[in-house]
Amino acid sequence: MIVTVTLNAALDVTYRVDRLCAGKTHRVRDVHSRPGGKGVNVADVLRQLGEPVTTTGFAGPRLLAELPHFVPIAAESRHTIAVVDAEAVTMLNEPGPPISAAEWAALEAEFDRLAATASVVVLSGSLPGLPADAYARLIRRSPAPVILDAEGEPLRAGIAAGPALIKPNIDELAGLLGRTPTLPHDCHALNVPTAVTLGPDGAVLSTSDGTWSARPPRPVRGNPTGAGDAFTAALAIGLARNRPWPETLADAVALSAAAVAAPIAGAFDAPTYREFTDAVTVEEN
Amino acid sequence: MIVTVTLNAALDVTYRVDRLCAGKTHRVRDVHSRPGGKGVNVADVLRQLGEPVTTTGFAGPRLLAELPHFVPIAAESRHTIAVVDAEAVTMLNEPGPPISAAEWAALEAEFDRLAATASVVVLSGSLPGLPADAYARLIRRSPAPVILDAEGEPLRAGIAAGPALIKPNIDELAGLLGRTPTLPHDCHALNVPTAVTLGPDGAVLSTSDGTWSARPPRPVRGNPTGAGDAFTAALAIGLARNRPWPETLADAVALSAAAVAAPIAGAFDAPTYREFTDAVTVEEN
Repeated sequence: MIVTVTLNAALDVTYRVDRLCAGKTHRVRDVHSRPGGKGVNVADVLRQLGEPVTTTGFAGPRLLAELPHFVPIAAESRHTIAVVDAEAVTMLNEPGPPISAAEWAALEAEFDRLAATASVVVLSGSLPGLPADAYARLIRRSPAPVILDAEGEPLRAGIAAGPALIKPNIDELAGLLGRTPTLPHDCHALNVPTAVTLGPDGAVLSTSDGTWSARPPRPVRGNPTGAGDAFTAALAIGLARNRPWPETLADAVALSAAAVAAPIAGAFDAPTYREFTDAVTVEEN
Repeated sequence: MIVTVTLNAALDVTYRVDRLCAGKTHRVRDVHSRPGGKGVNVADVLRQLGEPVTTTGFAGPRLLAELPHFVPIAAESRHTIAVVDAEAVTMLNEPGPPISAAEWAALEAEFDRLAATASVVVLSGSLPGLPADAYARLIRRSPAPVILDAEGEPLRAGIAAGPALIKPNIDELAGLLGRTPTLPHDCHALNVPTAVTLGPDGAVLSTSDGTWSARPPRPVRGNPTGAGDAFTAALAIGLARNRPWPETLADAVALSAAAVAAPIAGAFDAPTYREFTDAVTVEEN
């Protein structure tokens, strides 16, 4: 059983408009909303693959109706708004809700219960109103290996707690280092297994066993939102099954390309996934 | 007692961002929300003036918590999002909810109850999922004189039902005529008392008693959202008290300028209102 944790879950709202123009009034043609957040997306991808998965995190009163097994909090969970026109997607991300000490204690108890039988735990996304060491505390409590997909201070503090794998994208790695990364050199220096996603250029994976680069066979047009979460889902399966690292990396690059080909975050395009599964090239560095 | 009706009430959400840029991801610095819709704003202005007022309309489950005396509907009321940066305000207006026949019957019953003791009824704003003659039907039921602030087909159908006064802005009047209006000539042709707002240039009022133009003494910088609703509030008071038309028009222009000087819709700046009350110039055409 893979467990995903989404501390800053959101109601992801999509607005379709004719053309977003700052300073103007827009009639929203179509409103679509779904529970979101990176860990929720990872779980959706795992379910689509038929993989047993359980999710937890915090949910405010409204979001709890959609995520009834999440830990309830008094404040409302944030909304994210994706304004979609023919040209681009514009994101508006609300700040996360405050979390009380009692709410955090309830999350820790639920985490302990789920992690006790987990093969892999995935911690994903930003933090709501919590100290930056929140992920580090969960990593230290976890009897199962942890994949951490975070950025900034929560990532830095989390690395010190010894996760099994971190998954920054290249911008997040640059933010952590305070400069443009040199790959794979800078991954070694972090002293933790690291998968760095490079958008359409694939990914680099650096572990104590070796370093590999993987590239998709061709570029994929579509919606990159959620591609990183599909990548993480594949990492979680590889770790849960103890698959060889290069195989896991190739699968993650194929699945994340297939997620770009799907219109919404948390889904992937099955034909693209099948096509890419044997076509991703992996090189040992 | 003035009664305002807001069939398409909304939760008006304001997002403050550093700078809105299409295609980018924005961290929302500050989220503020309040019940809104034109009739709600009109009532807020009337309350600030100490005028007795009752409001009704439709409210979905979430909005009902904020407008508990509104007629409940099954679908959620729409949200409007105002994205505010240092340069401009960008509006995203969701479409309105569907209204069932039973919900419409409940609104008619509540309308009859309130209109029976009303001095003036104000019908404001867009329609949710209702036929375009919804305002016309309420106007025909109303024992009290009705001010109609609508546009497009609901305005056209409403005029045929004989309101006491309509209040289009110049763009809404152009939409109704299908061409650029010639004032005051085109008001006469509508055969209904008509107050046309002209933004910073004041307003024109045309009735069977005469036609007047009113201008504010100086331009006012600020937030024009809700200025039309303050204008309507002053019209309602004038009609309720049977004040002479030119006096009512001057008051409406002063109050709407004072609303521009206030940061949020439904409020006005009292010092500006005092300053403008005797300073608006009115000419008979």
